[in-house]
Order: sequence, then structure tokens, then C-alpha cells
Amino acid sequence: MNETVTDWEPAYARRAARMSSSEIRELLKLLDQPDIISFAGGIPDPALFPREEAGNAYQTIMGDPTRANAALQYSTSEGYLPLREWISSYMTRLGANCDPDNIVVTSGSQQALDFLARLLVSPGDTALVDWPTYLGALQAFNAYEPRYDRIEFGATNRTPESYAEAASEATAGGRVKFAYVVPDFANPTGRTLSVAERESLLALAGELDIPVIEDGAYAALRYDGTPVPPVIAMDAARTGHVDGARTIYCGTFSKTLTPGLRVGWICAARPIVKRLVLVKQASDLNSPLLNQVVMHQLAESVFDRQVTASIACYRERRDRMRAALERHMPEGVTWTSPEGGIFLWLTLPEGFDGAELLARAVAEEKLAFVPGRAFFADGTGANTLRLSFSLANPEQIETGIAALARLIRG
Amino acid sequence: MNETVTDWEPAYARRAARMSSSEIRELLKLLDQPDIISFAGGIPDPALFPREEAGNAYQTIMGDPTRANAALQYSTSEGYLPLREWISSYMTRLGANCDPDNIVVTSGSQQALDFLARLLVSPGDTALVDWPTYLGALQAFNAYEPRYDRIEFGATNRTPESYAEAASEATAGGRVKFAYVVPDFANPTGRTLSVAERESLLALAGELDIPVIEDGAYAALRYDGTPVPPVIAMDAARTGHVDGARTIYCGTFSKTLTPGLRVGWICAARPIVKRLVLVKQASDLNSPLLNQVVMHQLAESVFDRQVTASIACYRERRDRMRAALERHMPEGVTWTSPEGGIFLWLTLPEGFDGAELLARAVAEEKLAFVPGRAFFADGTGANTLRLSFSLANPEQIETGIAALARLIRG
Repeated sequence: MNETVTDWEPAYARRAARMSSSEIRELLKLLDQPDIISFAGGIPDPALFPREEAGNAYQTIMGDPTRANAALQYSTSEGYLPLREWISSYMTRLGANCDPDNIVVTSGSQQALDFLARLLVSPGDTALVDWPTYLGALQAFNAYEPRYDRIEFGATNRTPESYAEAASEATAGGRVKFAYVVPDFANPTGRTLSVAERESLLALAGELDIPVIEDGAYAALRYDGTPVPPVIAMDAARTGHVDGARTIYCGTFSKTLTPGLRVGWICAARPIVKRLVLVKQASDLNSPLLNQVVMHQLAESVFDRQVTASIACYRERRDRMRAALERHMPEGVTWTSPEGGIFLWLTLPEGFDGAELLARAVAEEKLAFVPGRAFFADGTGANTLRLSFSLANPEQIETGIAALARLIRG
Repeated sequence: MNETVTDWEPAYARRAARMSSSEIRELLKLLDQPDIISFAGGIPDPALFPREEAGNAYQTIMGDPTRANAALQYSTSEGYLPLREWISSYMTRLGANCDPDNIVVTSGSQQALDFLARLLVSPGDTALVDWPTYLGALQAFNAYEPRYDRIEFGATNRTPESYAEAASEATAGGRVKFAYVVPDFANPTGRTLSVAERESLLALAGELDIPVIEDGAYAALRYDGTPVPPVIAMDAARTGHVDGARTIYCGTFSKTLTPGLRVGWICAARPIVKRLVLVKQASDLNSPLLNQVVMHQLAESVFDRQVTASIACYRERRDRMRAALERHMPEGVTWTSPEGGIFLWLTLPEGFDGAELLARAVAEEKLAFVPGRAFFADGTGANTLRLSFSLANPEQIETGIAALARLIRG
């Protein structure tokens, strides 16, 4: 009889082999050092948080015994109805006509990604993703053991059949189960899909008869250029309602109001939402009602103002970062020019290693960013970096980019 | 090309076939009717909630700009350190010597169960559970496609080998991956495992070299009888520390302070906790920091008082329910006599159907409870009922039990 466990590895599920720590999350620990310049975490500037309004909302609710008792009790898995009503109006305003029954509240859009992979993916099924794509999405999906194939946009030799064939060749009985995209100001590249690219994505999904998962985390933060409708809006327009759409939209208040309350949502056809409510029930019963009530009050009262303030703040920082890159970067370094969001993507000459550069940046310049390789499902991209311009102030951006250029020059 | 999706079923993962709605959660909707007597949901009486203290805690934190900004930002996946310190002291007080690094904060103990199955179970592996057991645990585990085998306590013909053989016979390569128990005042039976039963459980787990998942949701609510140490305490005593234990403890503040903030925890050996932090990261990044900070303040200031008040309240209700059952129930009906917790388990004569009885109870007597069948992994138990005595007041308990007896008499 084994009195104690000395080796836990044999106890784990097969999927545990695919669980790895996020370089981004580990880097968040660096932010505790006040003198570091961070282009790392994709997190909002706390100076923008609607702190007073949130404080007042908590006070109002907790000061009313009936509301306070409801807020401190278990609640429904689908989420707080007035919040779902607000979200369905918001989605409808974005062009995706829907009702509160098309919405389930999640603990941030990260939980939405977890739930969707849980609902859709059996081990060995294929998920189509961009190369690179949001690292947290890969981490969420990995628990359900998919293989990945790269969605190609624009001029491509890939036919719908080629995706299906690759899926069934890789796994007996394996199928393509969904396509995941961050179509607006993508994490990590800052890139936005054109209307034509969105149309071709919907056509591909139609041919393969699969859902599209649209991650709209940054969509509200556009600084210039022409707005492009959400994929779900283009999709729902064909039948006039989200119930006829194959697109499943993941939204969040994390980049517009506050990430700390962990309130996000999924907007999808009713049959999907009903299933997701069961997933939520089994997973954590419900998101805290109090946080949802507060988020509803914030959405009602300060959403537009917060979006406007965030756009003004982050647009300036993007401009400063772009200008600093122009001024300091040596030849051979290229970068994206995002029309919104909080990320800019840097490509260094072949041979550079982002992880090695980060180690030097932290040690020599007290500067942090995220090496790009983690965002590639195939492990390539060693010579890329993700720079976030949301947290550093304009002076830090200037100093940090100059320091980064020095490091790259060697 | 399929313009819209008319049948979502083919899109789902295999595991979706095992997702079903909880009768308990559906019943929660009945509670909206103010005149119903509910013995259904296993939820605390809101009259006990530390409402003022919670309100004050929110106000204090949100009134301090530095703390408020931290509370509204992303935070660490493992949880708020002072809360983990409080929990590790609490677990040490219970006899399970441990450190804050042995604790990960979860969104209630429901999320703990989800995470543990995700970490431990590959499809076809075996989970040992009691018959009946907590329905929410079966729902959480089902997403990872285990098969179930029944743990037998006390005099049994089952050898450790028989569990292992059944697992590998049922699934090629399938293994027993854990044993799950609610050892104190179990949901749904109210039953408590004796020291001898806990010892034999640990011996069985040792022979099979598997972890024990101990669900301590109700453990703090003992009304009489002799306290029994937690399984994790007996286990950790062998090496002097939780790091040497195979038992993984799931705890929650839901039954002692408030369920609404969704704060629970897992206490386990460090290698397990490290893995679980990765699971948390991929799953929802972090639980809301604000809720954790408030829960920490409540735990520091009113935990003992709340436990004392809850015990006084629920003990009286248990006594009233027991007395009413004695007074009203016809011969042939038996029930458990729990020393704590919030549940009592009724067994009706063979031939009764709990679900049918519930339909009549709601329609004819405005009375709700949970039919017992859902708690059996093998679908038996049609003639059993779970009665919760936590929410109805003593007068309602008297009225409700009299009504239930009328229904049973027919």
C-alpha cells in the first residue's frame, strides 16, 4: 500500500500534457515592480476604471436588504436578466439582431472560450485558428484535445475539402468543429479582417457546416479607419436574427469597463445558449450576481463615456508607439499598424529569438513584452514580439521603444 | 453551402450527450413563487447572511483608490494571498497542516470539482463515488466522460483489485482515477462516514494509488454527535503535512458565509495545486479579486459568529423536521438522522416514484423537494427524496411535512 504520493504524473488525465503556464500570466508578476515598463499584459489602464460609479453601485445594492440578500444568494446559471437585456440590445445595435435568450453570461470571455470548446470538441477534432492567435484561446481549447489547422484568408490554395480531409486524415473520424477568429484588432497582431475576408470565412464555415467563434474582445476600441460589421452581424443579416446564425460571439466588459468583475458573455442561436447554460451549471453554477448587477448599472450609466475615454487614451498611446518605432527601430524590423485595440506586432529579422530578447530586456532595461512564439499553434514565430500599448504612459512608451531598439541593435 | 444551421446536434462534442439539466437547478425557479414551501434547493437561509459586514467591506475597499483599482483589475490565478493564508490556517486548525501554497481559490466548490475531473479524468477512466452522491459532482465529472463505480464502505466483498479490474474491463486501458466522497453530512443523505470508514477509504485509495477527493461543503455545520476529523487531516497526519497526502479537499464559504460571491477553494499537495493554477488560468483567468478581498474580511471578522448562528438556526430546523416526520409519516417510510448539514433523506416503500410525487406536491400542496433518483449514477433510487431543512422556517417545516405525509398516504 502506498502511504503517500511521490509522483503525481500518472494520476493526471491525458490532457494534462497540454497544460502549460502562460508566459503572459507569468509576466503579470513582473508588474509588481513599480519601475518596470510593461508592454506585456493585455490589460486596461486602471486610471480609466469607473471606480466611483462602481463603488456607488455596490453601496446602493448592499444598502437595500432585499437586493443585498438576492446578491449574496445563489442565482441563475444563464445570468442576470437585466444585464442580458442590455447585452442583447447592444448586440442588436452592432447589427446582430437578438433577444435576451440568445445571451448567457460568463466569467469573462476566457470562460466563454472554455465552454465553447467543451461543448464542441471531442479529442482529435480539428479547430481552425489563425497563425498566430490569442494564446488564452489555445490554452482554453487545449483542455479538450483538439488538433489545429490554420485558416487561410484571401488568396489561398486551401479548399473547404482540404480542411475536412486534413481533419479526418489526422484522426480517424475527426472532423473540423469550428473556426476561431479575433476579427477586430486581433490579439496578438492588431490586425482586422476585411469585409471580404469575413465573407469568405462565413462561406468556408458554410461549406464545412461548422460554427464560427468570433472573439470580440477589442471590437469597441476603434481609433480610425472604416468600421467593419461583426461577423455575427453579417451572418445574422441573412435570416434577420442570431437564431439563424452559425456565428457564436464572445464579448466582454474587460476592455471597456473593468476586467476585475469577470463579466463576459456569449451571444448565439438559442439551442447553443441552452446547452451553454447546462455547461455553466455544471462548471460553477453561476457567476456572482452582485458583480452582474453592478456591471449592469455601469453598462447603463457609463458605457459610452468609458468607451470614448478609452479610445482617446489608447489612440494617443498607439500613435506614440508607432512614432517611436519609426524613430528608433533599425532596418529589417517591421510592425503592424492597428486601427484599434491594444496590441501592435513586431517582426524582427530571422534569427532573433523573442524569449532571449525578453530576458535581456527585463535584466538590462527593466522592460517587458511578450515573445510571439506562444501565439503560434505550430511553435513558429520565434522572431516576433507582441507589444501592448494600453498600460504604459506616453513617456514610458517613448523610453521603452528606444530601449527595445537598443537591445535589437545589440 | 449551408446558409444557416438548422440542426446543431452534429456540431457538439461526444460529451454533450451527458449534459443534462439539474432537477435541482430547474426547481430553484419555483422559489420565485413566494408562497411555495421549499425543501428543494440546498441553499442557505439569506436571513443569516452577514449583509451589513459585506456591505461595509465593499465600501471600505471601493473607497480606497489603490485597493479599488487593484480590485477592478485582472489578478492572479491562484487567488488573493491573504485569503489563501486564512484558508491554510483554517485547514491547519482542522488538522490538515498546510501552507498558502497548498491552496487555490475557485469559484465555489462546484468549480473545484470541475477542475479536478479535468485534471484527472480521460474519457473511459473510472471515478469511484457513493450511491447516491452529490448530483452537481456527477454533472461536473460527466464533461470528462468517466464511468462510475460504487465505493462500498464497511463490510464488503469488493477488493481493491476488483475496482481496478472493473475499470480496465469496461475500457481498454481505463483506470480508476479517484474516489469522491462528501464525508460529513453528505449531500444528499446527511450521512457521515465514521473514522473506520475513512481509514478504509484511505487504505483503498492507497492500494489503488489514487487521490481521494473530499468535498467538505457542510463539514462546519455539526449540531451534535462526536466530531470526526476530515479525511485530509487523517491522511496528512501520516507525514505531518498536506504535501504528503493523497487527499484533495474542496471547501467553500457558501454554507457558512455566503454563496453569492462564489468563493471556494482546493487544498492539496503542492504539485496538484500548481497544475490546478494552470487549469484556472485557461478556464477563467482568475476569480474576481474584489469578492475574494471581501470574503477575506468576512472570514477574519465574522466566520465563527456565522458558523455559530447557522448551527443554531439549522439545528432547530432539523429537529423540527425530524419531529414532524415522526408525527406525520405513515409506516414504511424511513429517513436518515443527520448530525449536521442541511439534508435529510427519505426512503418510501418500493413502487413510489419521487418525480411523480413532486409533480403532485407542487400542484396540490405548493411544496417542493428533490426526487432522489438524480443522485444515483446508475439511475436507481426512484423511491427516495432529498429534503433540505435550511430554507423553510419551523412553521413551514411542520406544514410541509404534514402535506408530504398526506401525499404519500394518497
